[in-house]
Amino acid sequence: MNIVSVADIGMEQAGRLLQKKAFDEVVLSDRIRARNKELFGADLSATELVHHIVQDVRQKGDQALFHYTKLLDCVDLTSDHLMVFEEEFQVAEHSVDPKVVASLKKAADNIFSYHEEQKPRSWMTYRAHGSILGQEILPLSRVGIYVPGGTAAYPSSVLMNAIPALVAGVEEIIMSVPTKDGVINPYVLVAARFLGIRKIFKMGGAQAIAAMAYGTESVPRVDKITGPGNIFVTLAKKEVYGHVDIDMLAGPSEILILADDSASPKYIAADLLSQAEHDPLASSILITNDRALAEHTLNEVQCQLESLPRKDIARASIEDNGCIIVTENMEQAVVLANISGPEHMELLIKDPFHMLPQIRCAGAIFVGAYSPEPLGDYFAGPNHVLPTGGTARFYSVLNVETFMKRTSIISYTQKALDEVSDDIIRLAETEGLDAHARAIQIRRGEHAELP
Amino acid sequence: MNIVSVADIGMEQAGRLLQKKAFDEVVLSDRIRARNKELFGADLSATELVHHIVQDVRQKGDQALFHYTKLLDCVDLTSDHLMVFEEEFQVAEHSVDPKVVASLKKAADNIFSYHEEQKPRSWMTYRAHGSILGQEILPLSRVGIYVPGGTAAYPSSVLMNAIPALVAGVEEIIMSVPTKDGVINPYVLVAARFLGIRKIFKMGGAQAIAAMAYGTESVPRVDKITGPGNIFVTLAKKEVYGHVDIDMLAGPSEILILADDSASPKYIAADLLSQAEHDPLASSILITNDRALAEHTLNEVQCQLESLPRKDIARASIEDNGCIIVTENMEQAVVLANISGPEHMELLIKDPFHMLPQIRCAGAIFVGAYSPEPLGDYFAGPNHVLPTGGTARFYSVLNVETFMKRTSIISYTQKALDEVSDDIIRLAETEGLDAHARAIQIRRGEHAELP
Repeated sequence: MNIVSVADIGMEQAGRLLQKKAFDEVVLSDRIRARNKELFGADLSATELVHHIVQDVRQKGDQALFHYTKLLDCVDLTSDHLMVFEEEFQVAEHSVDPKVVASLKKAADNIFSYHEEQKPRSWMTYRAHGSILGQEILPLSRVGIYVPGGTAAYPSSVLMNAIPALVAGVEEIIMSVPTKDGVINPYVLVAARFLGIRKIFKMGGAQAIAAMAYGTESVPRVDKITGPGNIFVTLAKKEVYGHVDIDMLAGPSEILILADDSASPKYIAADLLSQAEHDPLASSILITNDRALAEHTLNEVQCQLESLPRKDIARASIEDNGCIIVTENMEQAVVLANISGPEHMELLIKDPFHMLPQIRCAGAIFVGAYSPEPLGDYFAGPNHVLPTGGTARFYSVLNVETFMKRTSIISYTQKALDEVSDDIIRLAETEGLDAHARAIQIRRGEHAELP
Repeated sequence: MNIVSVADIGMEQAGRLLQKKAFDEVVLSDRIRARNKELFGADLSATELVHHIVQDVRQKGDQALFHYTKLLDCVDLTSDHLMVFEEEFQVAEHSVDPKVVASLKKAADNIFSYHEEQKPRSWMTYRAHGSILGQEILPLSRVGIYVPGGTAAYPSSVLMNAIPALVAGVEEIIMSVPTKDGVINPYVLVAARFLGIRKIFKMGGAQAIAAMAYGTESVPRVDKITGPGNIFVTLAKKEVYGHVDIDMLAGPSEILILADDSASPKYIAADLLSQAEHDPLASSILITNDRALAEHTLNEVQCQLESLPRKDIARASIEDNGCIIVTENMEQAVVLANISGPEHMELLIKDPFHMLPQIRCAGAIFVGAYSPEPLGDYFAGPNHVLPTGGTARFYSVLNVETFMKRTSIISYTQKALDEVSDDIIRLAETEGLDAHARAIQIRRGEHAELP
């Protein structure tokens, strides 16, 4: 992690430092490439591999799903063992710490409460001569939630994906969780259960995304797939997009902290490291107008790092993807923050609410010294499924409307239609679409020559 | 166009009749395939061709954009002639019929009025101990609208795409319009101009989508691309998705009419044909519980067809993709309509508002005898950019929020954080993320041993 100064390198170069690789520019490790070459007999790119797996599951269903689960995850499933059994839920419930479950339930209450505020309403308006225009906002019928397994278990991801879907009124939520040896983390199962989710499939990777997108003999087809995953999951979500909807294409996690001389280097360092411990690819950035703060923070990061259990991951992340930028003033800092458009942005400055209107691009904004990012990850209520890699330019945080869809309602009366019929006919004829004009004319009693 | 009866074939088979090909299952014509083989030296699939073009424009910018515009559209552009000149707007304004422009402006007023109703507001709520949670809903910065050129000119598409973006508050709207010989339809130019859109690029196809997604020397990079196009445009939108957002992946246009014995066969036939004249691939479906109505409608379609200027297109569409299904009752009809999930659904039945709550899947619903689909295409106010091919399962009609994005706001006070800190620490530790716990603990004054 270096300290760089805008005074030295200029704004343009500083902006370039903040640019992230796109989700599909991730380079596979030599180990993964060697494995793929061994398994598939060719040096496939990640995109080619995912295309191959997805199309295979689309055509062959369960057979291909089980094949790839065995080949890639080394788990041997049959249709009898794909879905979590009632007994497995019960075993999980007996193995968990009740205090943790109580904390999960408190978090769930907060997440419900926040997302209830988002719930939209259908509406209708009356227009001239008894005509009605409206917009229905309806829940999706069935959605699939992908909850990563792998190195860590994330019951919080169950809450964050499922609760907005429940608030939206989705009829059926299914879950896909990759396993090691067929066993799912008990907190994931307990969280799913207290939310009423019973259909949990032990599958992961591109094959799981394909199974939910197209349906197989054992897995029902869904309308939308949400939730983060590794590069294969992400590329598979892109591959199935359009046949099914998805929430977003996400890459590694990020934090960007805007700080001035009022901020605590201890807090900043702890928050940067909380992001860094996720993944060597995670990015932790501090932008400040105060060089002394930058230097203190760098020291703090190095000290705090040493005592972390995941210090190897955090160190790799900080060294490869961490950065401290010193600007000449806070205006420059805000410009750079908006260029970055980070997943998580913290404002550790004097009077942070005054700066809020200037922040135009971020997934979530954490305001003030007592709003560290883990508060949002777990507990406050807003969602932790957020756009990354600068895609906050166009993607939204996961929300209730992620699980809903809009339909227009149009109802005119004879008088209302009659009054505007000349205009419609004229526009249809201008576009060369005479049958469009005819549908109006026939309702005025014209074209009586037709039988 | 055949009449089939659920009594004969059963509901399952009837449901299968309503299933559409996905956007990427369209088969290229022999003519297009032969051209591609000649131009690219290989029998590329549409997906391969689009991938090639998009990546080329991504890497080479203007040079590739001009190359493909010349190769595929036979228009020879330079960076001097890519954007519409001020003089071209003026020429267009002198060549249009003022009555048509007046009708376009009335339509624009209605579209503004409807979409203003959709405009969401950012909000904040106060929680315990002075903490604040909120949601900002901000406009995208720059969007690109694709307006098809080709066989017909669609000024209505300019209105339908641009007005929601204007209501959302998008800072800059650019437009891409393919041309024949470098000339754009004057109504398209006039509509763009009275909405204040000045940056109109004479480009189309996959190369235009790539130019807007990645930016070139002449075309600025956008945050989102909306608007319908042919199969190459659609596949290019999928290819760039994730680097930029898109509205949806759309296929050929569709209408599904639900009718009972109260409906007029004349009206039904005219409305079916108004869809059929778009494209041989367009689909026009009638579902009714009344066999006599089915037979009368079939006669009407055949009679009305004869006098249409675009009768060749309409006939091909009706013959290849038209269908009349007779059900045993209206309950069956509704089930089938929801399975279809059509772009446009008309309810030509007694008491149609009573049926509305049962319709769970449609792009737009036209209620009653005086709400023919062209009313919505041009004039009433709701949007005509709608999901097709059954994707109303998950996609929404284009709307103001299509051009906005959501950001969470989280601000806790020291007391508020302190009160929930045990829960957050417990959850972070359960997920094995100790640095997350540390970010909370350090704010409680713990880890004082650190420097």
